Amino acid sequence: MEYHAGAYDVIVVGAGHAGCEAALAASRMGCKTLIITLTLDSIAMMPCNPSIGGTGKGHLVREIDALGGEMGLNIDKAFIQSRMLNTAKGPAVHSLRAQADKSKYHIEMKKTIENQPKLDLVQGEVIDIIVKNQQARGVKTRTGSIYEGNAIILATGVYLKSKIFMGEVNYESGPNGLFPANYLSNRLRELGCNLRRFKTGTPARIHRDSIDFSKMSIQPGDTEIVPFSFMNDEINIEQQPCWLTRTTPETLRIINENLKRSSFYRGDMEGVGPRYCPSIEDKIVRFQDKPTHQLFIEPEGLNTKEMYLQGMSTSLPVEVQVEMIRSVIGLEKAEIMRPAYAIEYDCIDPTQLKLSLEMKHINNFFSAGQFNGTSGYEEAAAQGLIAGINAVLKIRREEPLILDRSEAYIGVIIDDLVTKGTNEPYRMMTSRAEYRLVLRQDNADLRLTEKGYKVGLVTEERYKRFSGKKDKIALEMERLKKTNVTPKEVNNILEEIGSSLIKTGVSLYELLKRPEVSYKEIKRLKKNEVNYEDIDKEVEEQCEIVIKYEGYIDKQLKQIDQFKKLEGKKIPEGINYLEIQGLRLEARQKLNSIRPLSVGQASRISGVSPADISVLLVYLEQKRRQKVGEKN
Amino acid sequence: MEYHAGAYDVIVVGAGHAGCEAALAASRMGCKTLIITLTLDSIAMMPCNPSIGGTGKGHLVREIDALGGEMGLNIDKAFIQSRMLNTAKGPAVHSLRAQADKSKYHIEMKKTIENQPKLDLVQGEVIDIIVKNQQARGVKTRTGSIYEGNAIILATGVYLKSKIFMGEVNYESGPNGLFPANYLSNRLRELGCNLRRFKTGTPARIHRDSIDFSKMSIQPGDTEIVPFSFMNDEINIEQQPCWLTRTTPETLRIINENLKRSSFYRGDMEGVGPRYCPSIEDKIVRFQDKPTHQLFIEPEGLNTKEMYLQGMSTSLPVEVQVEMIRSVIGLEKAEIMRPAYAIEYDCIDPTQLKLSLEMKHINNFFSAGQFNGTSGYEEAAAQGLIAGINAVLKIRREEPLILDRSEAYIGVIIDDLVTKGTNEPYRMMTSRAEYRLVLRQDNADLRLTEKGYKVGLVTEERYKRFSGKKDKIALEMERLKKTNVTPKEVNNILEEIGSSLIKTGVSLYELLKRPEVSYKEIKRLKKNEVNYEDIDKEVEEQCEIVIKYEGYIDKQLKQIDQFKKLEGKKIPEGINYLEIQGLRLEARQKLNSIRPLSVGQASRISGVSPADISVLLVYLEQKRRQKVGEKN
Ligand SMILES: Cc1cc2nc3c(=O)[nH]c(=O)nc-3n(C[C@H](O)[C@H](O)[C@H](O)COP(=O)(O)OP(=O)(O)OC[C@H]3O[C@@H](n4cnc5c(N)ncnc54)[C@H](O)[C@@H]3O)c2cc1C
Ligand SMILES: Cc1cc2nc3c(=O)[nH]c(=O)nc-3n(C[C@H](O)[C@H](O)[C@H](O)COP(=O)(O)OP(=O)(O)OC[C@H]3O[C@@H](n4cnc5c(N)ncnc54)[C@H](O)[C@@H]3O)c2cc1C
Repeated sequence: MEYHAGAYDVIVVGAGHAGCEAALAASRMGCKTLIITLTLDSIAMMPCNPSIGGTGKGHLVREIDALGGEMGLNIDKAFIQSRMLNTAKGPAVHSLRAQADKSKYHIEMKKTIENQPKLDLVQGEVIDIIVKNQQARGVKTRTGSIYEGNAIILATGVYLKSKIFMGEVNYESGPNGLFPANYLSNRLRELGCNLRRFKTGTPARIHRDSIDFSKMSIQPGDTEIVPFSFMNDEINIEQQPCWLTRTTPETLRIINENLKRSSFYRGDMEGVGPRYCPSIEDKIVRFQDKPTHQLFIEPEGLNTKEMYLQGMSTSLPVEVQVEMIRSVIGLEKAEIMRPAYAIEYDCIDPTQLKLSLEMKHINNFFSAGQFNGTSGYEEAAAQGLIAGINAVLKIRREEPLILDRSEAYIGVIIDDLVTKGTNEPYRMMTSRAEYRLVLRQDNADLRLTEKGYKVGLVTEERYKRFSGKKDKIALEMERLKKTNVTPKEVNNILEEIGSSLIKTGVSLYELLKRPEVSYKEIKRLKKNEVNYEDIDKEVEEQCEIVIKYEGYIDKQLKQIDQFKKLEGKKIPEGINYLEIQGLRLEARQKLNSIRPLSVGQASRISGVSPADISVLLVYLEQKRRQKVGEKN
Repeated sequence: MEYHAGAYDVIVVGAGHAGCEAALAASRMGCKTLIITLTLDSIAMMPCNPSIGGTGKGHLVREIDALGGEMGLNIDKAFIQSRMLNTAKGPAVHSLRAQADKSKYHIEMKKTIENQPKLDLVQGEVIDIIVKNQQARGVKTRTGSIYEGNAIILATGVYLKSKIFMGEVNYESGPNGLFPANYLSNRLRELGCNLRRFKTGTPARIHRDSIDFSKMSIQPGDTEIVPFSFMNDEINIEQQPCWLTRTTPETLRIINENLKRSSFYRGDMEGVGPRYCPSIEDKIVRFQDKPTHQLFIEPEGLNTKEMYLQGMSTSLPVEVQVEMIRSVIGLEKAEIMRPAYAIEYDCIDPTQLKLSLEMKHINNFFSAGQFNGTSGYEEAAAQGLIAGINAVLKIRREEPLILDRSEAYIGVIIDDLVTKGTNEPYRMMTSRAEYRLVLRQDNADLRLTEKGYKVGLVTEERYKRFSGKKDKIALEMERLKKTNVTPKEVNNILEEIGSSLIKTGVSLYELLKRPEVSYKEIKRLKKNEVNYEDIDKEVEEQCEIVIKYEGYIDKQLKQIDQFKKLEGKKIPEGINYLEIQGLRLEARQKLNSIRPLSVGQASRISGVSPADISVLLVYLEQKRRQKVGEKN
């Protein structure tokens, strides 16, 4: 039985981190949007670690926020501890990380979605994608509801034919006793999607009162809280602590002895797991010499005694989990509330996607999140946002928003996925970004808010705030450059901090360049001329970083220029690589399947050599001349 | 693979409303207790109406509270609207009802369980009950964990082999996209449990912003909030309104036309549904002449726009649901967020249970809640509490706590279930209680707190509070009886309220007997002698009800005396009914299977006639004499 249940501009399948961003973006950009999910009770659910952000991931959240996404605002409502990581290192790798109250995170996101105009939220299972003339046209649910849509975004996460593994035990199931979606995969295969099995795992949750914290080291939050969202100035909460502890040689012994019982090692699982979020047994196998491993103990929320055991994801049998956990320092009496498990699911080969996240072979059909082969809430949200924006732009018949590798971590993820593909759940890391001195978390708004505004996602309020900040930075930079200080004014301060004295006047700009001079010193100068209270901390931060790292940044900007040149060399859409003489066979095939937008993108395809790129450049130049010739 | 996961006194399977009460009671009574549930995210979940209490059910919550249970305390933390129902009628049927914030209700209950000493909470699926020598000894989970226990309480609710139905569509599933428990039923059958299929249904949830409230009548909460728990004096919240609307003749037409597509009517379902929570199609079929039916629109919480459509439970296909809902006044543009569905599940024939809720055929194996054939959160909680208490008493080798029909609604439910059985989901109603003038919601503490204290569940704090109140009531009754007023003192007041004047002095007690005299008047008298501020409202309430309804109450107490006589005539445990001459065959069989504790209970078994009871009485008397003779 089928019936027409409604017509929408955009339909989003899944209300995980990807689906939520996609649906909010599309509706905020003015499209009538539907979001369908297996149960309304798991919207923006965090099935694994109770935190948002962290190295690399924090950058993504900032970028999502700068573009007008929701993740940053939502975690700002729901966090219970916040820390800026890596502050001992350079600003490129500073990353914000917040512990979330999981239940509040879900409640707040659900509330936002329910209150969003133009967005309908419905519980249901999509079992069919309706495609006509190679264009996605709608979806069908298990109860026969047919929703028409001009663009469809798949964000099914870990639910497609998902299967749970604990030692010898395995069964079909979504995370946390939720239902898997068993019907959609076959239909996607029929539609030509190449599905693969990926897997991921989660550690046990243990009861707080069964932990001996006296044997662990405490990890407090920052004294000064930096909000995730550029829209928030200041957030004051009572920071909840986390704890740090270690496995013991006994843990090693237990795991080694039971390795053959791990689902991973038994060979029960077909799926490929994330190299960078390995299970504890993986870590032990890979680093047999390391006698102990670090573990973080993190609360799952304010209202619960469930504690998350970061670093101990496993698919060992529950009985081994108990033994293994109790061998950890301070966990001798730990009581497991939820056992650890691994989960395996269907996802797509992302090289089937364009950089816009639209499928190459089906128009107006987008996908995002774990379904695209990533792992992580932030990675999912970032793609969801882009898919949402691009679905709308496609409907508007405008050019897609494609962020390149020099503009955003978001650009890095998507380019990596689409151009290189991935053979395991892909996770963001700062080392994946070539231009990370420019792609900082602190300047995400300066990099992206303008773009978000242009596509109509960034609100006037956000844009005003952003412009104000930008202007203030410009003004302050100007002042720093123009304002000179005399030796008399500054030498006593320089002496205090052990910096070499000046002999003639220098600008504040010059002073701030010195590693040992910070804004604290600058603010002791020219106090009659400026009211330093008017200068926001973010303005100071920007000026200081930009000035201090000027040399490095300039160098990176030059590299980016180079990069942009190749990115700018567009490849015509219909190009037939198979007919290009001189390309190696592998390169022809790869290029033909990936279909890069630019020579730059082409150069990153694995299996395409620099020699191939030269051939390609020559070919493109010939074609260009030919065309010019034809026209004349 | 199996392993020993721990040893407990009491193991509770299921953390619904029954399981939570059972586990809290057992642990609070000092037993080491384990509660296992399919997912920690659905503890005390309300899969249907967002409210606790209501006619008859409100009494249960008060009784649970009086005995030291949790439901009353928990709803007091999580309600968003509260009303005392039926205040226009006599005090016997006054019933408290509160709208709950569903998500908060769950969070608070989970928190309480997590914080309860001696109670372990674990996520897992029980697939086996370990029985040795006809005694329950433990449980086994799907991951091979074996927990030993001295008593097991089953509270599996609607999850055993549950199946969801919407029109022509049906599939195995628990409520709300949760997993069903597919393994335990077969094992229970092996153990000799007679399982049946029951069913229940829930209406759609619709988006608040799609409702036209201007066409409905508003239902505000009470101006003065009466808490559920006797432990709470006063609760101040901003009361949220509900709304009242009606179906139209168009609704009737749509349902009639699509009746054959309802899962109920298609014959897809084997289960028997609740007569007193009928689906809308049932109501329409049963009352074809009624052109419209009443519907309540209730919020599901403070943080959500989901609204519950009370009165519109259905198993019609989703497309018919949309049409049908949009034919309701004010719902013309309603957007469904979750469709309505019916659910079918395995439950036990409760005549297999003793009045203690222990299985007759397996020692130390108890069951409670929807699994015992009831429907409703309160019914479940009430049984859970009793099962929890009796599991502990059994372990302690003490007599079980059995409340009889004259002591509590809880007694009524359990006696009805165990003695009469039920062929459909059983729901509490005031009409089921013969002695309802005595079993009021206002005096639940006076009836039961002493008993809860005796078994060790009621805390010292609660007991003190209760004793204080009892003493104050006694004092005030004494004062009312002893204090006389003169015509001069009182006649002007009597005149004011149109009550006949007195000629000689009368006691306050006599005055309060008059229907037109209330405590308001009493408080205008003898103001120099008493400080009325010291007399609590609950004390006034008790005195007033007891005095005003004295005649009726006395009559009922006499009936109770009669009733108690027959209840007091105990039947020896090993009695062989099949050998009693003169009993009709049906009576012999029924008595042999139900195995009543007393002649009173025997008299309520359907198929046992008054003549059979006479025969039984004679037989018991003979046996008694025989025994006395033997001794002499
Ligand atoms: C056990 C486990 C361990 C994990 N461990 C880690 C980790 O260590 N590190 C890390 O970074 N990340 C981890 N993750 C991954 C992280 O949870 C995901 O990356 C993130 O939640 C993905 O977001 P998403 O929006 O893509 O999908 P999900 O959050 O999975 O959401 C998918 C949504 O789609 C809906 N859906 C699916 N199919 C259908 C359908 N047919 N019809 C309608 N709705 C549908 C679901 O109901 C859900 O709302 C783990 C996840 C799990 C389950
Ligand atoms: C769709 C629907 C409609 C309803 N409609 C109404 C109504 O109109 N009126 C009304 O009064 N009541 C209604 N109810 C009933 C009400 O929800 C129940 O009566 C009440 O929740 C029963 O409480 P319980 O504790 O017995 O079981 P549940 O609340 O069902 O809880 C059962 C618990 O047992 C756990 N469990 C089950 N099997 C296992 C296992 N093998 N191992 C471990 N854990 C297990 C589950 O995880 C869950 O925690 C409805 C319920 C549903 C689902």
